[in-house]
Amino acid sequence: MSDTIENTGAAADAAPRRGRNEGRGAAARRASRAGGGPGPSMPYIQRKIPVYEVLDEEALQLIERNADTVLEEIGIEFRDDAEALALWKEAGADVKGERVHFPKGLCRELLKTAPSVFTQHARNPMRNVQIGGNATVFAPVYGPPFVRDLEGNRRYATIEDFRNFVKLTYMAPSLHHSGGTVCEPVDIPVNKRHLDMVYSHIKYSDKPFMGSVTAPERAEDTIAMCKILFGDDFVENNTVTVNLINANSPMVFDETMLGAAKVYARHNQACVLSPFILSGAMSPVTVVGTLTQILAEVLAGASFTQLIRKGAPVLFGTFAASISMQSGAPTFGTPEPSLVSYGAAQLARRLGLPFRTGGSLCGSKVPDAQAAHESANTLNMTLLAGTNFALHSAGWLEGGLVSSYEKFMIDQDQLGMMQKMAQGVDTSVEAQAMDAIREVGPGSHYLGCAHTQANFQSAFYRSPLADNNSFEQWEVEGAKRIEERANALCRSWLESYEAPHLDPAIDEALLEFIAKRKNSMPDAFS
Amino acid sequence: MSDTIENTGAAADAAPRRGRNEGRGAAARRASRAGGGPGPSMPYIQRKIPVYEVLDEEALQLIERNADTVLEEIGIEFRDDAEALALWKEAGADVKGERVHFPKGLCRELLKTAPSVFTQHARNPMRNVQIGGNATVFAPVYGPPFVRDLEGNRRYATIEDFRNFVKLTYMAPSLHHSGGTVCEPVDIPVNKRHLDMVYSHIKYSDKPFMGSVTAPERAEDTIAMCKILFGDDFVENNTVTVNLINANSPMVFDETMLGAAKVYARHNQACVLSPFILSGAMSPVTVVGTLTQILAEVLAGASFTQLIRKGAPVLFGTFAASISMQSGAPTFGTPEPSLVSYGAAQLARRLGLPFRTGGSLCGSKVPDAQAAHESANTLNMTLLAGTNFALHSAGWLEGGLVSSYEKFMIDQDQLGMMQKMAQGVDTSVEAQAMDAIREVGPGSHYLGCAHTQANFQSAFYRSPLADNNSFEQWEVEGAKRIEERANALCRSWLESYEAPHLDPAIDEALLEFIAKRKNSMPDAFS
Repeated sequence: MSDTIENTGAAADAAPRRGRNEGRGAAARRASRAGGGPGPSMPYIQRKIPVYEVLDEEALQLIERNADTVLEEIGIEFRDDAEALALWKEAGADVKGERVHFPKGLCRELLKTAPSVFTQHARNPMRNVQIGGNATVFAPVYGPPFVRDLEGNRRYATIEDFRNFVKLTYMAPSLHHSGGTVCEPVDIPVNKRHLDMVYSHIKYSDKPFMGSVTAPERAEDTIAMCKILFGDDFVENNTVTVNLINANSPMVFDETMLGAAKVYARHNQACVLSPFILSGAMSPVTVVGTLTQILAEVLAGASFTQLIRKGAPVLFGTFAASISMQSGAPTFGTPEPSLVSYGAAQLARRLGLPFRTGGSLCGSKVPDAQAAHESANTLNMTLLAGTNFALHSAGWLEGGLVSSYEKFMIDQDQLGMMQKMAQGVDTSVEAQAMDAIREVGPGSHYLGCAHTQANFQSAFYRSPLADNNSFEQWEVEGAKRIEERANALCRSWLESYEAPHLDPAIDEALLEFIAKRKNSMPDAFS
Repeated sequence: MSDTIENTGAAADAAPRRGRNEGRGAAARRASRAGGGPGPSMPYIQRKIPVYEVLDEEALQLIERNADTVLEEIGIEFRDDAEALALWKEAGADVKGERVHFPKGLCRELLKTAPSVFTQHARNPMRNVQIGGNATVFAPVYGPPFVRDLEGNRRYATIEDFRNFVKLTYMAPSLHHSGGTVCEPVDIPVNKRHLDMVYSHIKYSDKPFMGSVTAPERAEDTIAMCKILFGDDFVENNTVTVNLINANSPMVFDETMLGAAKVYARHNQACVLSPFILSGAMSPVTVVGTLTQILAEVLAGASFTQLIRKGAPVLFGTFAASISMQSGAPTFGTPEPSLVSYGAAQLARRLGLPFRTGGSLCGSKVPDAQAAHESANTLNMTLLAGTNFALHSAGWLEGGLVSSYEKFMIDQDQLGMMQKMAQGVDTSVEAQAMDAIREVGPGSHYLGCAHTQANFQSAFYRSPLADNNSFEQWEVEGAKRIEERANALCRSWLESYEAPHLDPAIDEALLEFIAKRKNSMPDAFS
């Protein structure tokens, strides 16, 4: 516990190359003083704190029974995929048109071959992550077509932004995973951009990453690039990508998602089977109703991966938000999605599947107190629910339409706090501090005592962004809000970025593959 | 569950008197649309969700053993209070000078007469609150000498500000308690201001409130005013004030706090025995060391109230923050104080005492994302720890130096979310929504279905401040940050404030008492 925090601080003092902006602003100076440099990455979280559970046994059984009823009586649609329907028929399901009805217990039986814990390999083995069990892995925002840049503009994202978020994620000590579509590089044709995205993850980071799911052939390209990076056999026998397969809720899997899922499962790569739920629109307005549908969808979708390849890793995913009945807009960080996610985590554990939910979700347009409250409510839940894979953990703004540089910096700081929190309470003799209490005694203070001197470096999480100075000091330094400090810190990180070493032969092979693939395609921007 | 939320929304549509600002701003219009008016107050929270516990049995026993050692071997100082020392001697403690050493088990034995649950009465019985058990009561910020006003100035607080915060708390549906020193009215002499403060709570609100603790005679004045309000017998036989008695950590109780505690306990009024802890300064830098000292201090201080009057209500209090080892400034919302508070809640439950901690603490100077993250981390912990009395739940800014109008509004919205969260998961047939899932089926949506229409009013918490509209709509409305919307909402609340009825005879008697008391004192401003 202590070590990681201690190292972060220590390395920060030594690390920063003095960039142009760094010498100037008070915020940059503070960041440097406070250990704001990008310290060494921390390993994925191994939670030493218990999970928080909101559903009792009775409620859990009720939901499981109801989900079984949904699966059997209503069924799930597998659209435009004859292979999927044939596989379900063969497995014993009752297939009527594209609607698949599942005999009780079929999905659970199939899921027995799915691992409850697996390793996702990174090109740097130090960055391998455990998915499942007591592990929590933080990954950045996924999907936004827009960015809020460091000049304050809201504009379409570019590949340059994409690279920047990969770099920032690489540098952020508390992000364990490079994620996937950290933003949509809309300046690259839609049919080609997956190649640049996967390449950016490989080139600018050494953390594990996600593959393309927007078409089966793009999933195949991802696999091909992974094989160049890791070797053919390694990919077939290990998991090197985690891939987001959304259910088209309610109760539909479409051709695109099924196509990508089949490619990944076939190659032993992990799928995150995620109902994408705005309660009140894609599911009932109630928590239990929503959980029932989520469980049914995950049971159908996750067990499908086992029809493709027994033992292929698959996660129980849940993206939960509510919908404003006034405006129709999604809302985040409110109590109901938290209850849904807590409940889904329990259902996942009972199913023996790793669980994905949460992150730092918000609906705000700017990184203000609304954004922070919504993100913090979501993130606290994410940790305490025992989430194994937390997408959208940094940079998410405006309901996922925008990747924000400033919010990314603020979020990654909060992730560091969660990682410290997850270490729980040390009860060693040193931590008991009885000698310190004896030494200090009534009416004195602990600031200078031996125990404090020996332990303070590792005792408290040190935020590089929070300003806890006096009002007067803060005013002298320009009365800056946290997003201004985040802006300065972000600039200084990007200036000090250094790419991790990549074997030039691999790099060349990847670039060659990309060029060949791109040459075979017309430009398509939609 | 549904009722309170539903009523809040419904009443908000009907309630607002159109004030000057209300017709003008888009934020005010949105507030009005979204149900932002001050709806009827909700009763105190009765938690239907489990508590979250970070310490296992072994750790709890370890801390209890160590606290016993501290009490016996090191002891606690009761300073400048001969009566206290005599009482302790009589009770069987080993008193050396002002240092009291407690034989093992003495404090626990004494605390057996303290109630684990009690009612604090308000002048409006509908506002009575349960303190202890599964109840959570939110009270506003306590103590700041400064305010951030609605014009954006940071300045000394006045009695006008004090009245405003009492009014806002009265109007806020999710604040169950009027609190105490919602800000320091520094425009009134320090020896007289307690009279105006207690009067303001009585006059401008009908929620329960806290008494003065800054001198024994001010505690006596509080009791006297309560007797005018409630009647002599009622006060002696019931609890009508909850009073903040801070330990002078480490391991000291001073004359002022002991004096106030004695007055209140003698009159059957509740004391919140609260070690005020900045870990690293007032306690060891470690969580377990801090918890050991907190437990020792509470055991000594709380059991002291039982020496004064057996059965007098007393709370296990904990104010937990850390100290920045770089600047010496307190830090809030970080992992370590959360772990301390979670642990203290467990120790309180084992002791059978109601528990106070948390709130919406932060170190930020402005209601930005730092303020919100720190507040949200603290507040989520406050709820999940099973806190019974949460002081500082709204308005706290800048490490408690400032009461902020805007932050008050943002916080009270978050408290509403916590109250909804605490209702947990409804598993009724209606909530199971199986008919809705059947009606909608695969590939459709729930927006118009009968179940959604019947349940959406009560389904989701509705924030009066969060903006979840489209970016374009938000921009048209002035691209406002949440604190700007909070500012507008606050102005509209204050304009629409109406005082609850107070018997004119009581009002007159209170004013007469205050005038008489003030006339007997010289002006003292420090």
